[in-house]
Amino acid sequence: MSDLAPDIAARLRRNPDGLVPAVVQQHDTGEVLMLGWMDDEALARTLAGGRVTYWSRSRREYWRKGDTSGHRQWVKEVRLDCDGDTLLVRVDQEGPACHTGDRTCFDADVLFADGR
Amino acid sequence: MSDLAPDIAARLRRNPDGLVPAVVQQHDTGEVLMLGWMDDEALARTLAGGRVTYWSRSRREYWRKGDTSGHRQWVKEVRLDCDGDTLLVRVDQEGPACHTGDRTCFDADVLFADGR
Repeated sequence: MSDLAPDIAARLRRNPDGLVPAVVQQHDTGEVLMLGWMDDEALARTLAGGRVTYWSRSRREYWRKGDTSGHRQWVKEVRLDCDGDTLLVRVDQEGPACHTGDRTCFDADVLFADGR
Repeated sequence: MSDLAPDIAARLRRNPDGLVPAVVQQHDTGEVLMLGWMDDEALARTLAGGRVTYWSRSRREYWRKGDTSGHRQWVKEVRLDCDGDTLLVRVDQEGPACHTGDRTCFDADVLFADGR
């Protein structure tokens, strides 16, 4: 059992691993910073305010971003999509969001750019 | 076999269903519009330029957004994240992105808002 509010838990549509993807966006610039994964408990902790908590699929543990790196994410807003299967988390990101040191996890690899 | 370039296919990390999530963002305003899913072929079609193609998990078919609704997405830029397991697709969205008629799939359900 998690601490997630029952009305929210009832709206969530989780993948077979019990997770939903969370798109993370810098609240003022609109930059898409990264995508993380949350189970009910990670979402409950994130909704408590303060900092964003994910479920790490590789380490199989909760992961409050910034605890190791110092690059903390402060929660500004959390939204659930029309299907209940994706979260949008708007944050204030301290420093780089990416473990490579890039500002966002999408900075390095451009597959296609129209007319540039 | 898909038409995806081998160097890109080699960098993609797919989920057990062979899919990667694609975060879709309006290129000029920064709005996060929706999240869709792509397999190699959907990505190849999207990278060919023009409009965004997804794999519909519910209908189990390719889905070029706008063919039914008229709400077409024109591809501006496609990026792959640092782990190779998430795409960021920047588009020019015609009309609402959400099947509910909302501009984005995240308009309706705010779970948390800080200080507002």
